[in-house]
Amino acid sequence: MQQTSNLPIGVFDSGMGGLTVLSALHSSLPQENFIYLGDTARLPYGTKTRETVIKYAEQAASALVARGIKALVVACNTASGIALPALQKRFAPLPVYGVVEPGAIAAVHAASTQAIGTSVVVLATESTISSGAYQKAIIKLAPQIRIFGRACPLWVTLAEMGNRDANLTRDILAHDIRGFLQKGSCVFLLGCTHFPVFSQALTEISTTVSVVDSAATTAGVVAEKLKTLGLLTDNLLSDAKHGQTRYLATDGAARFKQVGGQFLKCALNEVELVDL
Amino acid sequence: MQQTSNLPIGVFDSGMGGLTVLSALHSSLPQENFIYLGDTARLPYGTKTRETVIKYAEQAASALVARGIKALVVACNTASGIALPALQKRFAPLPVYGVVEPGAIAAVHAASTQAIGTSVVVLATESTISSGAYQKAIIKLAPQIRIFGRACPLWVTLAEMGNRDANLTRDILAHDIRGFLQKGSCVFLLGCTHFPVFSQALTEISTTVSVVDSAATTAGVVAEKLKTLGLLTDNLLSDAKHGQTRYLATDGAARFKQVGGQFLKCALNEVELVDL
Repeated sequence: MQQTSNLPIGVFDSGMGGLTVLSALHSSLPQENFIYLGDTARLPYGTKTRETVIKYAEQAASALVARGIKALVVACNTASGIALPALQKRFAPLPVYGVVEPGAIAAVHAASTQAIGTSVVVLATESTISSGAYQKAIIKLAPQIRIFGRACPLWVTLAEMGNRDANLTRDILAHDIRGFLQKGSCVFLLGCTHFPVFSQALTEISTTVSVVDSAATTAGVVAEKLKTLGLLTDNLLSDAKHGQTRYLATDGAARFKQVGGQFLKCALNEVELVDL
Repeated sequence: MQQTSNLPIGVFDSGMGGLTVLSALHSSLPQENFIYLGDTARLPYGTKTRETVIKYAEQAASALVARGIKALVVACNTASGIALPALQKRFAPLPVYGVVEPGAIAAVHAASTQAIGTSVVVLATESTISSGAYQKAIIKLAPQIRIFGRACPLWVTLAEMGNRDANLTRDILAHDIRGFLQKGSCVFLLGCTHFPVFSQALTEISTTVSVVDSAATTAGVVAEKLKTLGLLTDNLLSDAKHGQTRYLATDGAARFKQVGGQFLKCALNEVELVDL
């Protein structure tokens, strides 16, 4: 029987956005194996109700658990903000990590290195903003920080389109953030794993804001916690080659493979179509 | 046992857009009862693959058939363009009508009343455009007409958001249609049932184009065919009060009731949540 610590780490998102988190996990944990699931048939999650997000997140998690994983990373802000407690309870004792707390850590850290009075603007889907998950996580870490939330319902579709039209992208981004450009020093927290593809465009629109996302801090948190739990693969002990990643999607495997590289920042191998 | 002709007519769409067709059906067939299903949990359909659109359309149709209907109207261009033959085959002898042929009739008629050489621009989802369904239907009716197709992947989300920000809407619409504004006389065919909410904004952007959609022609075709089949309700014979409509949605019943009125052009009664 395979040792638990040598099982892959499961990662899921509503689509391809979570590949930005997977990319950071690859950097932090190069020897680990991963299974990534994108629920592309039913994206976006961010416009759905709480009940439906929990149902879909449980189905995605079940599909990964059935394939054998040692930990689960919910690489979707909407699902992290809404479904994390339900997933942790249902799949206990499997360690289940989200991206909201790590994102809050990144934003508070960035704000602390800037002028006093710097505020944090959370850019996310409607469900994530209305769940208040980021606002709560930031207040817990730094109660003095001023926080704004901005729902950006078009950005997920825009990102999944492959961010293919720079003018259109810039128009929509500029429209959605313009209310915050006169508010003094601020940190834009990309509270959706799809949004890092817009980092450069955002800094072009406003050179005075800093942009952070949860990918790197999530990978750091996952690496540290798995180490504490003794769940890092034995491969770390040897100087083995990099781990393997399997990709699963609920629709559009060919498109996933083609567009996914933009999020992962390298080419994807085969994508398997699955039904949840 | 209830007479077939007194059963309701089933209507489905990926979300609320099909309510524009339902509104036209209410006008054409005021005595009929309807059941409308919006698959809001899984919209948009227009970015999904052919296989997934057929699967979801069959599930939506099955849910309506199980409730007892005398005919089915696929009030979704993506599902009409891709899944109509599959639905007609699977649910035979139930009459199943789509919106693509009626939309083509409306566009060809509008073009014929304008300058010679008027072209038709089909504005639709990615799946509808790439299915070529509208292009084929128009060529069949009027082989001389020049046809352009333009995929507008953000418009469904924009419409389901309740079209709440006029500036953003205008920016996105203008961006997507600007390539056609210099092409001389043209008819914009709204090849997605969500798009009629943008009719006014489109004519404001360009006063020289005419905008048509498939709602009224679909309702006309359905009324005529049901009459031929002897399937109109007995209520027509008496001077009965208007028929009843039941609303079903797969997610966000409260939002559906709230935003749906924009598409239906009148208030909705209760919306029941269903699982497909």
